[in-house]
Amino acid sequence: MKLLRSHLGGAWVEGGPGRAKLVNPATEEPLAEVATGGWELAAALGFARTTGGPALRALTFAQRGELIKALADLYQAHREELLDLAVANGGNTRGDAKFDVDGAIFTLSTYAELGKSIGARTVLADGEGIQLGRSPRFHGQHLLVPRQGVAIHINAFNFPAWGTAEKAATALLAGMPVLSKPATSSALVAARMVELAVEKQVLPAGAFSLLVGGVGDLLDHVGPQDVVAFTGSSDTAQKIRVLPSMVHNSVRLNVEADSLNAAVLGPDLDPDSETYGLYVKDVVRDMTQKAGQKCTAIRRLLVPADKADRLRDDLIERLQAVTVGNPAHDGVRMGPLATAAQRDSVREGIDLLARDGRLVFGSFEVKAVGAPDGKGFFVGPTLIEVEPGADAPSVHGHEVFGPAATVVPYSGRAAEAAALVARGGGGLVSSVYSEDVAWVGEAVMGLAPYHGRVFLGSAKIAEASPGPGTVLPQLVHGGPGRAGGGEELGGPRGLEFYMQRVALEGSRPVIERIAGLTTTS
Amino acid sequence: MKLLRSHLGGAWVEGGPGRAKLVNPATEEPLAEVATGGWELAAALGFARTTGGPALRALTFAQRGELIKALADLYQAHREELLDLAVANGGNTRGDAKFDVDGAIFTLSTYAELGKSIGARTVLADGEGIQLGRSPRFHGQHLLVPRQGVAIHINAFNFPAWGTAEKAATALLAGMPVLSKPATSSALVAARMVELAVEKQVLPAGAFSLLVGGVGDLLDHVGPQDVVAFTGSSDTAQKIRVLPSMVHNSVRLNVEADSLNAAVLGPDLDPDSETYGLYVKDVVRDMTQKAGQKCTAIRRLLVPADKADRLRDDLIERLQAVTVGNPAHDGVRMGPLATAAQRDSVREGIDLLARDGRLVFGSFEVKAVGAPDGKGFFVGPTLIEVEPGADAPSVHGHEVFGPAATVVPYSGRAAEAAALVARGGGGLVSSVYSEDVAWVGEAVMGLAPYHGRVFLGSAKIAEASPGPGTVLPQLVHGGPGRAGGGEELGGPRGLEFYMQRVALEGSRPVIERIAGLTTTS
Repeated sequence: MKLLRSHLGGAWVEGGPGRAKLVNPATEEPLAEVATGGWELAAALGFARTTGGPALRALTFAQRGELIKALADLYQAHREELLDLAVANGGNTRGDAKFDVDGAIFTLSTYAELGKSIGARTVLADGEGIQLGRSPRFHGQHLLVPRQGVAIHINAFNFPAWGTAEKAATALLAGMPVLSKPATSSALVAARMVELAVEKQVLPAGAFSLLVGGVGDLLDHVGPQDVVAFTGSSDTAQKIRVLPSMVHNSVRLNVEADSLNAAVLGPDLDPDSETYGLYVKDVVRDMTQKAGQKCTAIRRLLVPADKADRLRDDLIERLQAVTVGNPAHDGVRMGPLATAAQRDSVREGIDLLARDGRLVFGSFEVKAVGAPDGKGFFVGPTLIEVEPGADAPSVHGHEVFGPAATVVPYSGRAAEAAALVARGGGGLVSSVYSEDVAWVGEAVMGLAPYHGRVFLGSAKIAEASPGPGTVLPQLVHGGPGRAGGGEELGGPRGLEFYMQRVALEGSRPVIERIAGLTTTS
Repeated sequence: MKLLRSHLGGAWVEGGPGRAKLVNPATEEPLAEVATGGWELAAALGFARTTGGPALRALTFAQRGELIKALADLYQAHREELLDLAVANGGNTRGDAKFDVDGAIFTLSTYAELGKSIGARTVLADGEGIQLGRSPRFHGQHLLVPRQGVAIHINAFNFPAWGTAEKAATALLAGMPVLSKPATSSALVAARMVELAVEKQVLPAGAFSLLVGGVGDLLDHVGPQDVVAFTGSSDTAQKIRVLPSMVHNSVRLNVEADSLNAAVLGPDLDPDSETYGLYVKDVVRDMTQKAGQKCTAIRRLLVPADKADRLRDDLIERLQAVTVGNPAHDGVRMGPLATAAQRDSVREGIDLLARDGRLVFGSFEVKAVGAPDGKGFFVGPTLIEVEPGADAPSVHGHEVFGPAATVVPYSGRAAEAAALVARGGGGLVSSVYSEDVAWVGEAVMGLAPYHGRVFLGSAKIAEASPGPGTVLPQLVHGGPGRAGGGEELGGPRGLEFYMQRVALEGSRPVIERIAGLTTTS
């Protein structure tokens, strides 16, 4: 069987003798093996710091942008191959796979463009110069400079292409070398992406390392100039946060974790309206795309109590039409979950949520089209509903990372909706669907402190919008509290995590000259 | 004896029966008592969240700025009283006390002005609007909105006025209520500041709470919308960082901790030059002001090897003239350390550093003018020097928080200086003194990734500059790694810690209307 290798210290390495298997989650057929450990990770980080870092920092933003553009072009050229890997190893339908791979390419392209627009500089000016004394001579200027460590990226299983690319794009553009650790279960896509970059020598040596398989003692070797960006569960995030090496070195950590994203239907919408239709469409997409395994997927459906029955029925009608099965099979609209453990966790979660109300659609007996009997990690689309005013602690406190959502009736008041959503303890994105601008304003301002993004669903943007579940590189992605307190992307904002902000204080002409502000701005 | 009370839940409370004493560190004379615990802290945080927060959020930035201006005016009106308290309880000379109290007033005034300049808004636009699709209708806009929790401020003993004020100014302007916990040993100044604000009803109820004495279980009650800003030792910071409540809720934590600030003398400077003179002056000020108890004080003196003897002799000459003693006494230029524990820790630290080289000035036998025999926590100015090329692990790894610095000879090469400074593992501020712009550029860019601020010492700014040891509200204060990885102040940048960045995504006219961008920008 094929052994996926890691790219560490500038070389392909196999790791120790322990092995784990990657399978097709629709058929449980083995696809590849990875080592469970046996790496030289201190040396790998050292190589990235001393070889990859200086090479990237010697380039301008425009030049780094060109490298990122070359990555985007490379993945575009190998798109079919990556899609096939995603279908086989990720349980993705072809549409799911495109969402991941095309999202990766788009994000790389966006950051390549950003590099071009920043131009021939190696540091970023942060704001305007500041006169500090009575004379304009005594001057301050904030700069952003690349951190001189490694950007360690620990990605989730659900977006092997996009997750790898969005983190790499920002770090590389900022001037930091990347060590990327994809989730083992779906590592084929990310591993191939790094392999392609290495084969084609797109990046300087040491700029893009890969660790597939066991993470070993990687995080015991982090230093004060390194950063760690983690996407995954709150439990794992909390373990990383308290590691002595992380704490002792004040290592910057960005976390994207659990999120109980809500979609609030406004009281003004008639079920025949286009915006109501958009709501239903966005909910069904988020429940079924990637089998609901999106950190941004809608989990809680806040609907005015007088429309809850109608919404439930409309959703059930749509969900009944979703064919679940092996995504390699024609006509399948939703694939399996990524692993047996995920399937079990989703089933337990659905049981928990159903105890807050009742299961109105779905069962654990799934007819999976095109999958061998009894094989594959399938859970069908599942809808739960709770009573108006129900406490529903699990609905507001437990994320089910699969194709499940809960109808939560509310009064129609914006403040009540915001308070209910806030019970999620902080999220990545929530959405408000309404054409009543005053009502939207109240709801949005209530939701804003608890989210990294608020999506305003409206007929006016129905055609252009990919829905709340799609992360755009131009907007920040992250959220407070349960969501991890992190922030990625957001165009130039994403660079800041990988850079040190430093205030220069001194004589104005000297500062402007050494910061390159007099020659290139 | 006077009992300092806490202001919690909108009322003055005495706490439990346990008592700790505040003393005059020059005479060890008791000044006041505080309770060591017995607070209702969950309720106090709840009151701030539900009473202080909404009241502040209902105001515009301009209105919050007016409140902060009123605080500044209040402290200006009571300046003499605050200075007297700082001299008695802080071991401050009158100059030290002014540095603290006037710094507090200046920082409040600066943030008051910022509020005025932001104007009649309740949220901040973060960057320009972004076209997200082919049509300009599908639109994104990042906003900053106040977080709906409490800003918990845990301050260090060395700047009871400035530390309290700079944190409060930023949080209040951002729209968050403050619970301020001054260090117990020097709490008289901060306690009086809150007392004055409460007496004069400058702020809404619940907007400015005070906890003096034992911190109790305060941090067990933090939630995902709260933030904690801590200034103090790395050890304490690390304990806070791993508290289950902090980790579980992804509570934002800003840390300002240890820092081995360096001042690099350039190879171009003749000892008769004005810039060399400025270097000596800044070093002596940082060693003696506040008895060296400034987190920004210069600890490591990097000097070209051929000028090390001269610098040492020049510093000794100046340090010999420093009269140490009771700061209430005329002619005393340097007071005691804040506590007996600090004195012991500084003595141990000096012993440690001296083992890396040798003690060239200072002894533990201090003639303290105006202090009762054997009383007071005095350590005199102390200079250590190491050999060129010495490994000196303690000099580069251990902060002595007192009037001590170490002469570290180097080759004169900018890259070597930057590498030596980087051995400090990340700092708040380092400085470069030179008139050779190319050399300064190389040194500054080498230092930048390791610092929150880099000061460029030059004759050109000698008259206007307060030196590297003074934190200015317009520039960020903080640093990576050992310094805690935090960032405060920096004008508007300081607000972000207290606000949630949220991306609005939807129809452009709706977003611009609800964000108030069409009416007030």
